Amino acid sequence: MIKPNLNYKNLKDSYLFYGIAQKTKAYLEKNPNKKLLRLGIGDVSLPLCKSVINCLEEAVLDQSKKETFHGYMPECGAPFLRETIGGYYRKHNIFVEDDEVFISSGASDELGDISDLFDKDNSVLILEPAYPAYVDANIIAGRKIIHLGTSIKEGFTPDPDENAVADLIYICSPNNPTGAVFSKEKLKKWVDFANKHDSIILFDAAYEAFIQEDYPKSIFEIEGAKTCAIEICSLSKTAGFTGTRLGYTIIPKTLIRNGMSFNSMWVRNRTTKTNGVSYILQKGAMGVFTEEGQKQIKENILFYKNNAKILMKVFDEFNIEYTGGKNAPYIWFKCPNNMGSWEFFDMLLNKIQVVGTPGEGFGKIGEGFFRFSTFGSKEDTEEAAKRLEILFKELLKK
Amino acid sequence: MIKPNLNYKNLKDSYLFYGIAQKTKAYLEKNPNKKLLRLGIGDVSLPLCKSVINCLEEAVLDQSKKETFHGYMPECGAPFLRETIGGYYRKHNIFVEDDEVFISSGASDELGDISDLFDKDNSVLILEPAYPAYVDANIIAGRKIIHLGTSIKEGFTPDPDENAVADLIYICSPNNPTGAVFSKEKLKKWVDFANKHDSIILFDAAYEAFIQEDYPKSIFEIEGAKTCAIEICSLSKTAGFTGTRLGYTIIPKTLIRNGMSFNSMWVRNRTTKTNGVSYILQKGAMGVFTEEGQKQIKENILFYKNNAKILMKVFDEFNIEYTGGKNAPYIWFKCPNNMGSWEFFDMLLNKIQVVGTPGEGFGKIGEGFFRFSTFGSKEDTEEAAKRLEILFKELLKK
Repeated sequence: MIKPNLNYKNLKDSYLFYGIAQKTKAYLEKNPNKKLLRLGIGDVSLPLCKSVINCLEEAVLDQSKKETFHGYMPECGAPFLRETIGGYYRKHNIFVEDDEVFISSGASDELGDISDLFDKDNSVLILEPAYPAYVDANIIAGRKIIHLGTSIKEGFTPDPDENAVADLIYICSPNNPTGAVFSKEKLKKWVDFANKHDSIILFDAAYEAFIQEDYPKSIFEIEGAKTCAIEICSLSKTAGFTGTRLGYTIIPKTLIRNGMSFNSMWVRNRTTKTNGVSYILQKGAMGVFTEEGQKQIKENILFYKNNAKILMKVFDEFNIEYTGGKNAPYIWFKCPNNMGSWEFFDMLLNKIQVVGTPGEGFGKIGEGFFRFSTFGSKEDTEEAAKRLEILFKELLKK
Repeated sequence: MIKPNLNYKNLKDSYLFYGIAQKTKAYLEKNPNKKLLRLGIGDVSLPLCKSVINCLEEAVLDQSKKETFHGYMPECGAPFLRETIGGYYRKHNIFVEDDEVFISSGASDELGDISDLFDKDNSVLILEPAYPAYVDANIIAGRKIIHLGTSIKEGFTPDPDENAVADLIYICSPNNPTGAVFSKEKLKKWVDFANKHDSIILFDAAYEAFIQEDYPKSIFEIEGAKTCAIEICSLSKTAGFTGTRLGYTIIPKTLIRNGMSFNSMWVRNRTTKTNGVSYILQKGAMGVFTEEGQKQIKENILFYKNNAKILMKVFDEFNIEYTGGKNAPYIWFKCPNNMGSWEFFDMLLNKIQVVGTPGEGFGKIGEGFFRFSTFGSKEDTEEAAKRLEILFKELLKK
């Protein structure tokens, strides 16, 4: 008699995005003429850049002709792309070998799959607030989860805590949802902590392209990381690949435990459980790493950064504490007047028709906080900023 | 201290394709002027059909413009494709609801991922010879594997056996490697067996498009299957998507155990562990299901079927028993004169420069058997057939 994976029963229903959708739907039904300004979505809005489009077009053409047609791709990634990404790291003075680079269908998919490398009896450390999938993927795997709450006082980049030791440590920097970035010194503490306790850091670098100040973009900028970390990266936010899908993962060959190499295990996993990532997408990804492509994706990121500036100006004006914006596409702030996340959500929706994301959706500690994303249009962001100013003036009786 | 997933230690090294590559490489180094005829690869050689290419081109164009750009796709699949595939089933009188269809990155990926739905303490039944990934994925998951050997006497489509009851049953029809197809009566026995024992059948239908005789193309043609089966399908062989990647999975809403719906669990799994399949690939897949696309993919399949005919003629001529060819892109036969798989491999390579796949690679019971694929060019297949005739004449002293 088959036993379902009973761990699914331990998953909490995720009401966050469903709740947001229901509430906005209800509002629009009552107020069909109002225009909503959406600062909730974590999805890009600009199309793929020209350099990527050119590569995708070539790839489709390749697949149309016998001479250039590609069948099964190597499971760990096309050599041309592994070399290109390895070279990209090395150009930035991070020594990564080509066969330490694995091509994936995106960070989200990879974060789910990579769990397979670890025994179910490992404990997992989640720095909250956090991307909900870290928690849920480990509930599905049946692992014990340790939550380490972070606070705005420490800028949401906490120090490791000897009372919260775990086998697997998720770090996302720049962070979703807080937009906070870990400094070199801070990451060094985590790397030392992981090496000391024989833990492994899963470093989610999906937002690294938004770093403009002097913060590490890769965990491998930190000495010692190559014996304790796996880096999971994605082109979703870097180059607008959220709906196109491509990511990459770095597993150092020096990452070994119990005499087992995680790099070799991952090769074996991929050759068993996948048949590689689409040739079309891998060739498309090549367009990101050309000189032209790098220029074009930077322009797009600058566009989102300008949205961030528009919003940050409002928060600065009213002395509302926030993290993010500068080195991340998210702005995370405490709801004014100690309002609850959902209470503030309702107020924004009803009073000024702005939709954001209640912090509660990222773990209990997010209660009382709120996330804005900067992926919308300039016009909407400007209009939202204006309305926020009026609201804050009223709320904070300036 | 992190514990790696120690199950990886139980994986046997897969020497099959490595062994083939090494031996052919060594041969070519010694005989640089010889041309090898490759009947080993399980990969398609014809390019994508025009209808698919058109859709892919449109999709790339969509991604280049703000108005038509697609960000995150729904995790379980784009509604347009789920509806199309649901409709495709219904057109063939198999009632499948649209939300019983899940879009995947291909059968291989899905077979790996879907393991997550089941507790590790389930036992697994493998009908050998079998696609090696079934075994390896379950070794990684730490499950107990029961091997049920099949024989050429029963046409490699065995009956269920009360002495080999398991929780999860893998059935691949048409089969890789044997090319054998399960009849309606045979599948009915398996469905009844699974329902009786509360087991679940994972039905791998990746080769269904090659069925030309009156055999079931879907497990859901069988009464009772909707309470005991999951069907995993792919466009890899159907439409040459091996390097383009797209598949689909049917999980009936009536598949429930311990009060848990596997359809709902899979929705939760996908929303946690993926961000959906590339818009470009999903739109490309739409090209398979148009009237034009169906005609074009059938032409391609006919091309491979013609290769099969060329080879089958030789086996018929020499009364060599084989399965497959007619309803599958593989031909599976007993090596002449009781030769071993690798012994015959060496003979083919050295004497007539034909490369095939030793049956041993698909489980112990495949020892003494050999697989040819029909995915090569017509010229190579014809030339291989000629050389095989000469070899068999000599070997079998006709």
